[in-house]
Amino acid sequence: METIQIVAIAASVIALLFAGFLTSVVLKKDSGSDRIRFIGDAIQKGAMAFLSREYRLLAIFVVVMAIILGVFVDFDILGRIGRETNDGVPGTAIAYLVGAFGSGLAGFIGMSIAVRANTRTTVQAMEGLDPALRVAFNSGAVMGLSVVGLALLGVTLMFVAFNNDASVVAGFGFGASSIALFARVGGGIYTKAADVGADLVGKLEQGIPEDDPRNPATVADNVGDNVGDVAGMGADLFESYVGSIIATVALAVVGSSTLGGSTEKLDLILFPLLVASIGIFSSIIGTFLVRTGEGASMGRLLWSLRTGIFSAGALVLIGTAALILSMDLDFKLFWVVLTGLLAGQLIGTASEYYTSYEYSPTKKLAEQSETGPATIMIGGLGLGMMSTVIPGVVVIVAMWLSYYFAGLYGVALAAVGMLSTLGITLATDAYGPVADNAGGIAEQAGLDPEVRERTDALDSLGNTTAATGKGFAIGSAVLTALALMAAYAQAVQIEVFNIMDIKVMMGLIIGAIMPFLFAALTMQAVGRAAYAMVQEVRRQFREIEGLLEGTADPDYARAVDISTTGAMKEMVLPGVIAVVVPVCVGIGLGAEALGGLLIGSIATGFLFAIMMANAGGAWDNAKKYIEAGHLGGKGSDQHSAAVVGDTVGDPFKDTSGPALNILLKLMSIVALVFGPLFVSI
Amino acid sequence: METIQIVAIAASVIALLFAGFLTSVVLKKDSGSDRIRFIGDAIQKGAMAFLSREYRLLAIFVVVMAIILGVFVDFDILGRIGRETNDGVPGTAIAYLVGAFGSGLAGFIGMSIAVRANTRTTVQAMEGLDPALRVAFNSGAVMGLSVVGLALLGVTLMFVAFNNDASVVAGFGFGASSIALFARVGGGIYTKAADVGADLVGKLEQGIPEDDPRNPATVADNVGDNVGDVAGMGADLFESYVGSIIATVALAVVGSSTLGGSTEKLDLILFPLLVASIGIFSSIIGTFLVRTGEGASMGRLLWSLRTGIFSAGALVLIGTAALILSMDLDFKLFWVVLTGLLAGQLIGTASEYYTSYEYSPTKKLAEQSETGPATIMIGGLGLGMMSTVIPGVVVIVAMWLSYYFAGLYGVALAAVGMLSTLGITLATDAYGPVADNAGGIAEQAGLDPEVRERTDALDSLGNTTAATGKGFAIGSAVLTALALMAAYAQAVQIEVFNIMDIKVMMGLIIGAIMPFLFAALTMQAVGRAAYAMVQEVRRQFREIEGLLEGTADPDYARAVDISTTGAMKEMVLPGVIAVVVPVCVGIGLGAEALGGLLIGSIATGFLFAIMMANAGGAWDNAKKYIEAGHLGGKGSDQHSAAVVGDTVGDPFKDTSGPALNILLKLMSIVALVFGPLFVSI
Repeated sequence: METIQIVAIAASVIALLFAGFLTSVVLKKDSGSDRIRFIGDAIQKGAMAFLSREYRLLAIFVVVMAIILGVFVDFDILGRIGRETNDGVPGTAIAYLVGAFGSGLAGFIGMSIAVRANTRTTVQAMEGLDPALRVAFNSGAVMGLSVVGLALLGVTLMFVAFNNDASVVAGFGFGASSIALFARVGGGIYTKAADVGADLVGKLEQGIPEDDPRNPATVADNVGDNVGDVAGMGADLFESYVGSIIATVALAVVGSSTLGGSTEKLDLILFPLLVASIGIFSSIIGTFLVRTGEGASMGRLLWSLRTGIFSAGALVLIGTAALILSMDLDFKLFWVVLTGLLAGQLIGTASEYYTSYEYSPTKKLAEQSETGPATIMIGGLGLGMMSTVIPGVVVIVAMWLSYYFAGLYGVALAAVGMLSTLGITLATDAYGPVADNAGGIAEQAGLDPEVRERTDALDSLGNTTAATGKGFAIGSAVLTALALMAAYAQAVQIEVFNIMDIKVMMGLIIGAIMPFLFAALTMQAVGRAAYAMVQEVRRQFREIEGLLEGTADPDYARAVDISTTGAMKEMVLPGVIAVVVPVCVGIGLGAEALGGLLIGSIATGFLFAIMMANAGGAWDNAKKYIEAGHLGGKGSDQHSAAVVGDTVGDPFKDTSGPALNILLKLMSIVALVFGPLFVSI
Repeated sequence: METIQIVAIAASVIALLFAGFLTSVVLKKDSGSDRIRFIGDAIQKGAMAFLSREYRLLAIFVVVMAIILGVFVDFDILGRIGRETNDGVPGTAIAYLVGAFGSGLAGFIGMSIAVRANTRTTVQAMEGLDPALRVAFNSGAVMGLSVVGLALLGVTLMFVAFNNDASVVAGFGFGASSIALFARVGGGIYTKAADVGADLVGKLEQGIPEDDPRNPATVADNVGDNVGDVAGMGADLFESYVGSIIATVALAVVGSSTLGGSTEKLDLILFPLLVASIGIFSSIIGTFLVRTGEGASMGRLLWSLRTGIFSAGALVLIGTAALILSMDLDFKLFWVVLTGLLAGQLIGTASEYYTSYEYSPTKKLAEQSETGPATIMIGGLGLGMMSTVIPGVVVIVAMWLSYYFAGLYGVALAAVGMLSTLGITLATDAYGPVADNAGGIAEQAGLDPEVRERTDALDSLGNTTAATGKGFAIGSAVLTALALMAAYAQAVQIEVFNIMDIKVMMGLIIGAIMPFLFAALTMQAVGRAAYAMVQEVRRQFREIEGLLEGTADPDYARAVDISTTGAMKEMVLPGVIAVVVPVCVGIGLGAEALGGLLIGSIATGFLFAIMMANAGGAWDNAKKYIEAGHLGGKGSDQHSAAVVGDTVGDPFKDTSGPALNILLKLMSIVALVFGPLFVSI
């Protein structure tokens, strides 16, 4: 084992230990009165019920896929691969199982802590803003550090076990992707089915407030925040994190020749692990800098989170520079890491600009509510389309700079750089749903309005970080997918994918169709699942006597079950398509066409995902802007128009948009793993 | 001059003569009472005012561009092209001017007849359905035959004048593209600004019916139908028609070697002209088959139009087969033409399936109005995304088949085949706005409800043919753009555009951004122009005494002027971007990157355009389905929800979506014309 590998394992273990420590800090807090605990338990049970059903379904998928990998890739029964390292061990299949397990475990840990931190955040919010922020943020940090810890640990162990052979370790990435697919898609459908169902019947038909305990779907809605925004987001970024590292390692050979031999291949293989390790230490230090005082303004709260992220970024750069100099590596690598980090921040900031009501795009969008729902819809769609330009240009420039410094290796390494501070970035992101849940619990437990005000402040901040986080997730997914595509080209040893080759062109158009198909399937899935929820909630209001009067409790568990069943059923088709289509294109049209498919899907999916995430975020915040008392405030016609926008934006930003991240990366990693089977068919 | 060129010129002249004959038939009809003529005159003046201002603005653009072409391409002052055929004549610049003039003239003719046929259709509708259909359809046929006649005449004369040099004649296509850009974008902004402005104030604020004469924007709305759907659509397809022919000729050398010398290069150069000529004769024969009886059902009316189109298609196939056999050409060419024709019909039919309320997608969409505007929005967006799959697959299969038969030459020829019956396809399309106008005039002149019922039947049919026509326009635009891209590769003599080349990759992502940017700009332009219209209509209702009571006339001209000014101002930026970006990419990143840009924009723009056109069409018809008495009918909450969908769909289907067709083709032809300047920079 190399020193850097030992460092990486140590860093991962420290991350996990620190996550354990933060867990104990969170759990030591008071979990509140009986009523609070009752609601908390319902959410907890619902979340765990979802997770256990999801994992059981996943287990089948994972086992089948592992067997396929073992048979066709490891034991190569078609005799198409002829991998040297195969010594009777089904390496890819093993790596796949470990990757799936690692990602699943990270999701489980993150969810477990999130559904326990919500009640505790509510209780702390009775004390003040800072203690509430600390609990919520700490639980986010447990998620962030578990993800990076398990991801880096897993990927490093795989590299050690399989002798730095990226083509085998790609199985690990594929495993992570498989979990991410179902966690993001299933979680996204779940959360929006519950949300839309709760809103349509509760708010619109029965006229009761959001999060009202009489609404049967309210617990399901709270569960949804956890399964979608905690577990889904975590699995998504777990996948990006390991995918970027694997792609970088796979391209080390190319990188070595690009850098003109100034840095050896082994150094280039180990370098991404080094950057990731530095990132973990930096993230841990960063978490200590997140704190705020009572009565802090929104700007102050945001600044507090930013201090943590920016400090971690600065530490990564300092650490990387120092180690490059001390290890006598090529300093160009530093510029690549810097490029990646900056690009991630710029894309996140652009998302914030387009979706926060502090800036003019969302303010202007809110004004379009004055002429009704149609104009705010048109405005939001226009805004979403327009908002693709800056992230698009940032990715193009980042690609160009990192390529300029270190070739295709550089493009992959830039993704690693972007994701290096994931431990803390994900913490600021996963904290949001906890704060959101805390507010819901305060409402349902009938606590003092002051408590709800505090949790609302935290939640509102969470919305901003969520928008930034979504931009960041998309940006990192795109860079990772591009890097994996380059690794795929390397794996199948094809240097030229010529657009003028009719098969590549066909593959490219098929690739471009995929995001549209995937988004359509997930949008329609939300529609169907939400409809089932609406029926159930209506039934409960009709059949349970005294429910609306507050004298009888609703059947929360039944609503949770409806959402869970809907999500399970609906996630299968998009999931299968995402795996089957690239394989079919590879078999039917060959390895070159598969390259075309990848770039077609990346280009379209990237922009489509940004459009949906930002349009959704802007509608959400335009509504919040009006609720804050502008343009007629709550209850006005303007507000109704904005609610329409927000409802449309929900599946955009929380289901279909994020699902595209997974699609791009999954298809790339499927290509990388199965690619050698398709060569010269 | 070759025999086939003489045939082509003869066919064009016959088309124009027949158009002249149909014009006289239409003009001989009674133009109605004073009131009808008053309204008709207002529409006519408004349309001509728009056209004259548009053409004056265009003239500046065209002259500047012609000078640029003359200096940099023809006289090649940078010394980068070294074209053999240049003997002191600025060929490209001349071809450009002729192309621009031809397209402009076709638009002028089509508009002139459309704004005269509308009143006459109203008058005939007092008699019965068949005479009204005849007038409206004949005026559409004038447009269709003028477009194909002028296009084929112009392109053939250019080939004769410039010795079949496609690189010079490409200037003709560029000229047509320039007009199409402004006609589609400007016309699209105009029509929707007027429509949305009229609806928002008239229907929603003042509660008066659509097309009510008291509404100041109602004439502008009628004008809009003509400038958007007649002139805009005509210019769009004029461009596709000549673009596909030019690309096919440019690829004749490649085709000759693909077909293994069984067919000579000159035959391949002349073959597209032959197919187009056969198409013209077939279209003329087809127009005679369009007629119907009184009390005909919707299905019967549609069938009547279909009979014309299908017969024309069959005649093209018979004619092509006969001539291939008699001239001893390779019979594979027949299969290519068949592929193109079938693909066009399939894409059109798929659009109809997704947007007509005869089929389940739109019916289901209408049902989603039961839960309010948000769910019908989500449903429509999902439907639009899903509806990209069939056209996408059709294009892929058509590409593959035509490539299989005749290589890249085949892909271009398939586009020619698809567009061969344009004379009649465009007639069924351009007839819609005339019927729509006729209904508006009947309403404003206070005619018998029976008249309005008849025009409504024709209009409703027009909506179906418009949806099919939009699908067809997009499909043909995509095939044409792909063909032009292949011609571009040929022109710059680059055989390999490698996706793994970082510059190609960058170009590809820039290309993918373009449709999003273009759609965003045009959507926002509609918003701004509609807002100006809303202000003006409100002002008139406020300031003109007795307007709402019907005792005073509104100032129609002022509203027309507002729309015109808005459209002029708003079309400049998207127009300039569409020309400047490919040139900048060519200069900055080189000819390979420009190829990447083209394929990136084609893949994304194609699907995005289909999505917008079909979502818009489905919303429109879901509203009509409810208005026909389903789901609560007019005035119900479901209807209000559907109106929101329709309003959002308007700029989707009539502005941004169609504008993308132009973007794809324009960027391809810019690349083809300027390409040689960018080689090996």
